[in-house]
Amino acid sequence: MHSIDQRFQRLATTYAPGQEVRLAAGATVALPAGEVLAGEPVDFSHGNVDVDAFMPTPSALDEFIAGVNRGGAQAYTDYRGSAAIRARLAGRLAAFTGAAVAADDGLIITAGTQGALFLAGASSIGADDKVAIVDPDYFANRKIVEFLGGQVMPVRLDYLDGGEAAGLDLGQLEDAFKAGAKVFLVSNPNNPTGVVCSAGEIGAIAELANKYGAIVIVDQLYSRLLYPGQTYHHLRASTIDADNVLTIMGPSKTESLSGYRLGVASGAPRLVDRMEKLQAIVSLRAPGYSQAVLNTWFAEPAGWMQRRIDEHRAIRDDLLTVFSTAGDVAVRTPGAGSYLFPGFDGLKMPLHDFVGLLRRAANVTVTPGTEVGPRSVRSIRLNFSQNREAAVRAAGRIVTIFKRHAV
Amino acid sequence: MHSIDQRFQRLATTYAPGQEVRLAAGATVALPAGEVLAGEPVDFSHGNVDVDAFMPTPSALDEFIAGVNRGGAQAYTDYRGSAAIRARLAGRLAAFTGAAVAADDGLIITAGTQGALFLAGASSIGADDKVAIVDPDYFANRKIVEFLGGQVMPVRLDYLDGGEAAGLDLGQLEDAFKAGAKVFLVSNPNNPTGVVCSAGEIGAIAELANKYGAIVIVDQLYSRLLYPGQTYHHLRASTIDADNVLTIMGPSKTESLSGYRLGVASGAPRLVDRMEKLQAIVSLRAPGYSQAVLNTWFAEPAGWMQRRIDEHRAIRDDLLTVFSTAGDVAVRTPGAGSYLFPGFDGLKMPLHDFVGLLRRAANVTVTPGTEVGPRSVRSIRLNFSQNREAAVRAAGRIVTIFKRHAV
Repeated sequence: MHSIDQRFQRLATTYAPGQEVRLAAGATVALPAGEVLAGEPVDFSHGNVDVDAFMPTPSALDEFIAGVNRGGAQAYTDYRGSAAIRARLAGRLAAFTGAAVAADDGLIITAGTQGALFLAGASSIGADDKVAIVDPDYFANRKIVEFLGGQVMPVRLDYLDGGEAAGLDLGQLEDAFKAGAKVFLVSNPNNPTGVVCSAGEIGAIAELANKYGAIVIVDQLYSRLLYPGQTYHHLRASTIDADNVLTIMGPSKTESLSGYRLGVASGAPRLVDRMEKLQAIVSLRAPGYSQAVLNTWFAEPAGWMQRRIDEHRAIRDDLLTVFSTAGDVAVRTPGAGSYLFPGFDGLKMPLHDFVGLLRRAANVTVTPGTEVGPRSVRSIRLNFSQNREAAVRAAGRIVTIFKRHAV
Repeated sequence: MHSIDQRFQRLATTYAPGQEVRLAAGATVALPAGEVLAGEPVDFSHGNVDVDAFMPTPSALDEFIAGVNRGGAQAYTDYRGSAAIRARLAGRLAAFTGAAVAADDGLIITAGTQGALFLAGASSIGADDKVAIVDPDYFANRKIVEFLGGQVMPVRLDYLDGGEAAGLDLGQLEDAFKAGAKVFLVSNPNNPTGVVCSAGEIGAIAELANKYGAIVIVDQLYSRLLYPGQTYHHLRASTIDADNVLTIMGPSKTESLSGYRLGVASGAPRLVDRMEKLQAIVSLRAPGYSQAVLNTWFAEPAGWMQRRIDEHRAIRDDLLTVFSTAGDVAVRTPGAGSYLFPGFDGLKMPLHDFVGLLRRAANVTVTPGTEVGPRSVRSIRLNFSQNREAAVRAAGRIVTIFKRHAV
């Protein structure tokens, strides 16, 4: 059994996205003057929701204020969230994902998508359980498993060689199931690479999960921000046993609504029921007034989401040009979402030193690849939901620093 | 080791406060007409934040909107919360509690006080650890211990016979420590009874915790709503080892700000550090825009809190009159907070039936005592932060129903 000390030993957040400000406070040695590149600060660790980049969905704040004005009816909902809001969401999510959503017993509103991930994990993973986890994938997935005392079974994502597919190593996934893994936790689109599972991959996941009776928790946070030429296949609309799948979404970076801290999980009632029981002791109930903001979700003004996709695609393509013309930078074109995951194989300094140097010498904040997977020791994650011009200039500075310190 | 099924077996929320609406949907058998008492609905399971009762602190919504307008700076703070807001809070909390608060490493903002409780518990309680828990106490305390695989060591609260003290059985607390309990989780003022620990009790808790090297997590959610004649003794300002105490507060029912879902924990940096690491995987970060509402906390307009105390005292005294003149109702005068915990020893039906009958025949929602402690099989919990007249009439209906079904 894991002792409390062991439990926290592996839960480090020192290099986690968003925590850089605490790290920066510790840096005291001055850089040589020639090392510093001028340029406005760009924080690629998360999306930019300020006026010069991507503002929240119109009317989000209006809906929040309307929620406050509803008083207790909005402050004190069911733990799983307001019944009226769930009813509204169920129809929209069913239409988007192509499979029915039960508003009453198949849907829960949570404190951020992070809240949904934790509740889903803790509702399906017991101590000593084996859990299949993609490498690389969202930084918290591995940590949730470890905190719960489970055992990570890695499933390699060969994202650079995926071709039309994401590049999931399905043989490794089956090996994990054969070895006893009862849960597969996966983001699709993948965070950090932006790759999207093909129809074949989704079909194979469903088939394997059914064969081994495993639960699949799929984090679809970026599935709305889908670029032209891509098709998104919803696992919940596949042949997978509906009693063994949980789908996590939420209005977040795509809609620039992260600050309201909202997430939604839908799927098997037996798992949603557990999630609500756990939410009761973890954060009591779905975020009170914030829930009202969900009324704007999947109900944006005509053309708004398309414009958002177009704008993100333009930034994506600009950054891809910067990195792919630099030479020696390995990067795959994201099919969805706002993450880019360039790899710098020729880097001749430790990754954390490179990340620190980017912050101090180039005014650029990025997340080290090791936060998203143990193999990514030469990669960095960039959220490109940023001011376009500033992001392009910052990417140029990243390349300059890299070139100075490449073999 | 607890399996995942065992873990959830004891996490029932069927009768938990706020979940009555889900329960009500299941009631189908009609009551005899003579059984029903006319009267407007009163939901004593939580405070009433509507216009006819207790509205949120003035300017709370303004601060929230200002937070939204700050954009990313408010949406994406440190996981433990905005440094600027923590700096502001640290001074106010130090002044209120009488002991220093370290803004940088001794303070964390959480998703509700429930979030603070869970993170504090999970940061100090390991599997198979013994934890001293007061009976009765806040409903989640016991469940958090059980979910973490710990073992509850009950500490009786003889609230009806406490005299000047709350009535904590200090002998039982020492027995728990002797038996190996490493953590004591306690609410003061107590929820549900409203009793406040005396100077002697706080001194004894500190002494025992120091003697046995135990961590004390004290939930002081209602410590601001203190009635005349009462003195509140802050454990963190006692002789307790500062490295072994966590204090939980938050703007909630006292300030009618529950809907913003905010909590704050302060204390030992080693524990706050763990709480932040855990928050990263549980809800990622302190509630984004909502954090801004903390700027109004302990900074209410002159006289506002005093008026709020006076208004609550008036309701408290009215309800006490209803129950104490009824005969056969055992109730202690709360020294703080907005909970009343009357006991109906002569009740001749099971408690859940009585609670269900109150809902269906009297339009009154209350929380069964068994949610707050296994011994409270004849008690109900009322949050009296309500419209005064409606609350008094509802209390009258409770007594009427009780009399019909008393031995």
